[in-house]
Amino acid sequence: MTDVKNAKSPLGPQYPMRDPAGTAKFRHQAIAVILKTDIEEGLQVLLHRRLHEPFSGRWELPSGSVEVNENLDHSVRRHLSRYIDPHVISHQEQLGTYSDVHRDPYDRTIATSYLILVPWNVGEINRGEGQWQTVSHAGDLAFDHQRILGDGIDRLRAKLSYSNISFALAPHSFSIAQLREAYRTVLGYDVAATNLQRVLARRGQLEETGELAKPPGGGRPAKLYRFTSQQLRITDPFAAFKP
Amino acid sequence: MTDVKNAKSPLGPQYPMRDPAGTAKFRHQAIAVILKTDIEEGLQVLLHRRLHEPFSGRWELPSGSVEVNENLDHSVRRHLSRYIDPHVISHQEQLGTYSDVHRDPYDRTIATSYLILVPWNVGEINRGEGQWQTVSHAGDLAFDHQRILGDGIDRLRAKLSYSNISFALAPHSFSIAQLREAYRTVLGYDVAATNLQRVLARRGQLEETGELAKPPGGGRPAKLYRFTSQQLRITDPFAAFKP
Repeated sequence: MTDVKNAKSPLGPQYPMRDPAGTAKFRHQAIAVILKTDIEEGLQVLLHRRLHEPFSGRWELPSGSVEVNENLDHSVRRHLSRYIDPHVISHQEQLGTYSDVHRDPYDRTIATSYLILVPWNVGEINRGEGQWQTVSHAGDLAFDHQRILGDGIDRLRAKLSYSNISFALAPHSFSIAQLREAYRTVLGYDVAATNLQRVLARRGQLEETGELAKPPGGGRPAKLYRFTSQQLRITDPFAAFKP
Repeated sequence: MTDVKNAKSPLGPQYPMRDPAGTAKFRHQAIAVILKTDIEEGLQVLLHRRLHEPFSGRWELPSGSVEVNENLDHSVRRHLSRYIDPHVISHQEQLGTYSDVHRDPYDRTIATSYLILVPWNVGEINRGEGQWQTVSHAGDLAFDHQRILGDGIDRLRAKLSYSNISFALAPHSFSIAQLREAYRTVLGYDVAATNLQRVLARRGQLEETGELAKPPGGGRPAKLYRFTSQQLRITDPFAAFKP
């Protein structure tokens, strides 16, 4: 602890500091956990290979420093735009702030991470040196990015059950078979298509578009659906407790 | 934006900076949203009256600067211990990080808030100059603390529906009538006692202690219950989707 009793205000004695200890300053980073589903490859995360120490040669999440004239929401968008077009982002939410004293071996740095989702149909959207990798094969990431990636996946899995977040995994219209594959990819286990459709319909999340699409493998045309809302909300938050 | 191209690494040329723009440093604050329920007064938050500018005379959430040798979890505990004994805390979780460029009129400061819960029976636990106030009468708080308080209440309300967080509102044992009052206090509407008991029992959250307690107002002794777990978890996360 610093000696807070005898610290002087940098603003002058007419402005007593509300906390005289508050002279420590830190670099602050914004970090993006960018996820999308892929039926064949599994859950994908956008990574970048570090060219410099520390952790040279290791993969890291897209990240960068917060500047004096931007807030965190803007900073993370600025940094991730080196790797993808921000217009394809379907959902962005703050995940958590990481402040272990030695998380950066060169200098104390505090970092705030974001969970960023893009729909499964966006194809090759990466710019620059970013690369989609399968989460289960991503290996050991630089800094504490492994833990941050894990927190992002945990958040997405949990929100699939208590929110309508799956709208952000899907394109504008889709078949139930496709949506089921996205759930399976994130959750890691199979989901019954009839059950999925019934639960989402009961919550008022899904509606038919009125169109049909032929499955790529042939067979009967499948009904297409869309989500009724593209805004995140907790689904039926107090259904159990409402009178 | 600063000129990132021509920035030099403060570590020397042998260590090219991973982000040459990363020279900006910020003060960082830890902020505590400390809540408890009170049957008569409603939802309570612990506040402190500011004695200095900016916002002199206004109420604020317990908060203070992060020091070089502590992480955020430790920092928030250190600052809130000026107002309550940390041993009474039943739950602590990170809420969010606030980084608006002008959130502090004196100096750019980034702040991370925590949701902190204490059981309803702890009585007069405040130390120093902290004071419990009813949330609905708390008025306009200093800085962006009004928004942060709102985010804390929203998080608690949402988690009452999809997690077992109510363990942190209650003491070791309690009657269903008492627990129902805690839900009503947080949610702002009445909850049927039989419905509440049924839902929590079905989720495996509640068990009878085997003891009875006389209600303070007289009448039949009521069964006492306890929570089966004091660790936060998402309740039945994929009940709807499990095969």
